[in-house]
Amino acid sequence: MHSDTVNVHAVMLADRAETFVTRRVPTIHVQLGGIPGDRHYGLLRPADSRQKIYRKGTLIANRRQISIVSEEECAEIAVRLGVPEIVPEWLGANLLISGYDRLTLLPGGARMLFPDGTGLICEGENRPCIGPGRVIEQHYGIPGLAARFVSAAQKRRGIVCSVECEGTIAAGDSIRIIRFDGSEQ
Amino acid sequence: MHSDTVNVHAVMLADRAETFVTRRVPTIHVQLGGIPGDRHYGLLRPADSRQKIYRKGTLIANRRQISIVSEEECAEIAVRLGVPEIVPEWLGANLLISGYDRLTLLPGGARMLFPDGTGLICEGENRPCIGPGRVIEQHYGIPGLAARFVSAAQKRRGIVCSVECEGTIAAGDSIRIIRFDGSEQ
Repeated sequence: MHSDTVNVHAVMLADRAETFVTRRVPTIHVQLGGIPGDRHYGLLRPADSRQKIYRKGTLIANRRQISIVSEEECAEIAVRLGVPEIVPEWLGANLLISGYDRLTLLPGGARMLFPDGTGLICEGENRPCIGPGRVIEQHYGIPGLAARFVSAAQKRRGIVCSVECEGTIAAGDSIRIIRFDGSEQ
Repeated sequence: MHSDTVNVHAVMLADRAETFVTRRVPTIHVQLGGIPGDRHYGLLRPADSRQKIYRKGTLIANRRQISIVSEEECAEIAVRLGVPEIVPEWLGANLLISGYDRLTLLPGGARMLFPDGTGLICEGENRPCIGPGRVIEQHYGIPGLAARFVSAAQKRRGIVCSVECEGTIAAGDSIRIIRFDGSEQ
């Protein structure tokens, strides 16, 4: 077991019907299905093009509940795109953390533990799709950014998590990221 | 993505209050919380000694819903213990499969797909504890078997799974075991 401590810089919610773009809130309460009020909340969700083993639309367990990105990786994507910044809201992120090297490579099964005992399970890389690219292209008004985002964000777009232990997450929280070797989990 | 086809030899249920030992049934219906009527059913379960990052008894997501063992690994445990056989019921298994090399080493995140579309997610090795060892010791009347089971069953005691897509599992089903590389899942 290996443990690192990092900080939550921002907590965000996708609670607007018209967009996946998130907005900052002071705290979120997480339940077994994710963040109530967020567009990714639910114990079940329809399979999409990421889950090729199921017919599209089949209801499957929702393990893409909470999206986490890091300041360092957002900055790397910005450099690769040649833009001043990539804000986590454009990526639909729920948490922005800093101080963790290569968040996107965190293996599935790693845990994130919050001060009140809330626990998340890393479900692996959040593979980039073009949606956030379009938001970035629209913001900067530079044609072609949307498609370039998909390749620029590979292995840098953060992770998706599901809830293991319900509770509250707040901006400013200090969290433990715990990786296991195969025999411990 | 790599896919293998194996057979379900038996389907079993732990529906007796006094024991974790399972009994054979023709089919089981699985839901998001596991197998209704089985002692491991539930969306939540109390953390135990396996989850050291939570205080014992804390309610956490239940990913130990369904236990699967293989005929080949049960036979290996029997050889190591010097007994004629280890039946899957003694291990509290819900499924007995055959024809898959080293089931216990199947990585977390692998999927099992059943004929009607039911899908399970491999949550990793089911690490042996002394309970099944006591059942085996009592059956054969050989003192010391219980403790010896724990070491004999390391990396041979099968896996635990959670339900990804609800449906029905039957003895005789032909199932696909699907492993992903890191980028596909």
